[in-house]
Amino acid sequence: MRTQVAIIGSGPSGLLLGQLLGNAGIDNVILDRVSKDYILGRVRAGVLEEGTVGLLDRCGVGARMHRQGLPHDGFSLAFNGRDHRIDLHGLTGKRVMVYGQTELTHDLMDHREATGGKSIYEAADVTPHDFDRDNPYVTYVQDGITHRIDCDFIIGCDGYHGVSRRSVPQAALKTFERVYPFGWLGLLADVPPVSHELIYANHERGFGLCSMRSETRSRYYIQCALDEKVEDWSDDRFYDELRRRLPEEHAQRMVTGPSFEKSIAPLRSFVAEPMRFGKLFLAGDAAHIVPPTGAKGLNLAASDVHYLFEALAEHYGEGSNAGLDAYSAKALARVWLAVRFSWSMTTMMHRFPDTGEFGQKIQEAELDYLVSSTAASTALAENYVGLPY
Amino acid sequence: MRTQVAIIGSGPSGLLLGQLLGNAGIDNVILDRVSKDYILGRVRAGVLEEGTVGLLDRCGVGARMHRQGLPHDGFSLAFNGRDHRIDLHGLTGKRVMVYGQTELTHDLMDHREATGGKSIYEAADVTPHDFDRDNPYVTYVQDGITHRIDCDFIIGCDGYHGVSRRSVPQAALKTFERVYPFGWLGLLADVPPVSHELIYANHERGFGLCSMRSETRSRYYIQCALDEKVEDWSDDRFYDELRRRLPEEHAQRMVTGPSFEKSIAPLRSFVAEPMRFGKLFLAGDAAHIVPPTGAKGLNLAASDVHYLFEALAEHYGEGSNAGLDAYSAKALARVWLAVRFSWSMTTMMHRFPDTGEFGQKIQEAELDYLVSSTAASTALAENYVGLPY
Repeated sequence: MRTQVAIIGSGPSGLLLGQLLGNAGIDNVILDRVSKDYILGRVRAGVLEEGTVGLLDRCGVGARMHRQGLPHDGFSLAFNGRDHRIDLHGLTGKRVMVYGQTELTHDLMDHREATGGKSIYEAADVTPHDFDRDNPYVTYVQDGITHRIDCDFIIGCDGYHGVSRRSVPQAALKTFERVYPFGWLGLLADVPPVSHELIYANHERGFGLCSMRSETRSRYYIQCALDEKVEDWSDDRFYDELRRRLPEEHAQRMVTGPSFEKSIAPLRSFVAEPMRFGKLFLAGDAAHIVPPTGAKGLNLAASDVHYLFEALAEHYGEGSNAGLDAYSAKALARVWLAVRFSWSMTTMMHRFPDTGEFGQKIQEAELDYLVSSTAASTALAENYVGLPY
Repeated sequence: MRTQVAIIGSGPSGLLLGQLLGNAGIDNVILDRVSKDYILGRVRAGVLEEGTVGLLDRCGVGARMHRQGLPHDGFSLAFNGRDHRIDLHGLTGKRVMVYGQTELTHDLMDHREATGGKSIYEAADVTPHDFDRDNPYVTYVQDGITHRIDCDFIIGCDGYHGVSRRSVPQAALKTFERVYPFGWLGLLADVPPVSHELIYANHERGFGLCSMRSETRSRYYIQCALDEKVEDWSDDRFYDELRRRLPEEHAQRMVTGPSFEKSIAPLRSFVAEPMRFGKLFLAGDAAHIVPPTGAKGLNLAASDVHYLFEALAEHYGEGSNAGLDAYSAKALARVWLAVRFSWSMTTMMHRFPDTGEFGQKIQEAELDYLVSSTAASTALAENYVGLPY
């Protein structure tokens, strides 16, 4: 088989890029080692920047999101028993859209099918080849047969554990990493959210987050030690713990109900540089991971896809490689700003075991200053709604 | 002897408070263990917030400062070989005044003498007594004789190493401290400053600061290891090192000349809580130390003095102790904001031996974001010109 662009990974970034390319008449194939249903079974983020929303609209995939998504004009920062609203729209003129990544992936998959995009699921041993030469190709195994797709470019949208980044010679990669000394225990339940906006809570017992997927589905998190076991957390214990970390007004309002997903995720910051090796380009989690505190992961994948699509469109449309040559530096500039923000919000909102008393007072002063200063609130808000592309 | 307010320490905070009290008809005595000339021989900070300038005006001591001081509307942040101006006045509507602490102390001492304020210099063994009872007093030794001053209140303006904080029972004090893993090597010389505004430089070889006392006197600093020896730094070596840390445009313009002061200072954040123990009140460095990066030390002393004077005036004028009872909490709220800012600017501008590659990239992203965002620049600027009292 031959295509112009071979995309490894059928998550949101691969699907988004495939759709943009397809709409522009650029032939592409998406490969994934797992099944469609497996991908749709993953529980993931759900806060979209306006840039991400715009990209979905541009793909022609935004209709259901606009119908069912929840536009949010602000969120709550809770600490010291009190609640402080960050007025995102008032401070920046922008808002965010709460719409689960699973729904978004579903929309993109449906649209791809409807528009005749080629996707290969359950492709075993997907491997990029010769991306440092003129004629790269991807191989995979299906039904015991090894298939080969020749292409102009290979795009790695296959996440942190994917084959794409691992295929690059180690010496060509520089990686940066920070592992945080705690995790998030998350619970998903069909109960109405405790508040119509997200609540980020800093509490002496640890961070808590009240998020949501819809008006009837809540996504709640509590900071936990990395050695906690999900089995030790009954729903009741989880709700009790979260309630203790919230201001009274919210705790009282919390509606509880049986969870249908509960898991512990570690928090990590990771960046691999560069994001391009010859004919192989990385996008999204394949190149960088942020802790979820700032809701940046999916949005960062979207901005990578934006830059990459523009570059590929320029290549095929105008015969210029300028965009492709600039991709890594351009994407990384925005990546590092989001990595900084995610690190900074994580640092500000969590209790760190090794902070010490001075560090703890600094964190409290940081929060006090933040909510007392329009400039500082605006800086937080402009990062949260997303820095410009 | 009897007075209403006994002030320990004849630095700027003691002198400022003494002058405000004297002007309000509140009797006070200032004691210092060293001589007037010794105090005037200290080389100290020189960037005044508008609040500090206003306080000096209110004391009637601002005339020479307004004649000889240099109002600055901005400063430079230099990194990555480039210079970024922080437009303090454009971002906040405020400016700062560059006027050496030595000059300011001189003006306050002259004014105190002219207005008949009582100061006792070279007072040995100054000791506050019975400040946890109704009738506190201070003793000191001069010419072999022990003297006693009875008073209503004792004010400790005697700095970090002074007797006042040390007189408080340890159990009544909670202290917070951060010692930074580097120092500042400073040089004072009668050469015109490299630029008409201050330059704060972040460089891979370490932090550099081009400050000034006047249009003909420069105060330059470079970050150095704590075990450096001043003797190892000739003026030439110092100037060469500073030049390497500045953008080319500035380095080229640097005029060098013999130094007349050169010293290494460690950097420390320190806060003691509370700032009041019965009839003893602490102000300025006696209660808190900040690293000099944000130019906050003297200004924080001035805001303490402001709160304390208002409280004492209320006590003597209206017979209310509400201000005195609120002093510690009120002063500490502003202290922690300034401690946070000084820590944050120090963290952003210096190279830390243990930062690691991820931390280094975060610092670079922090600077990139700061100069690209009006909100973030404004947050920096509003802290630099001074948060409201």
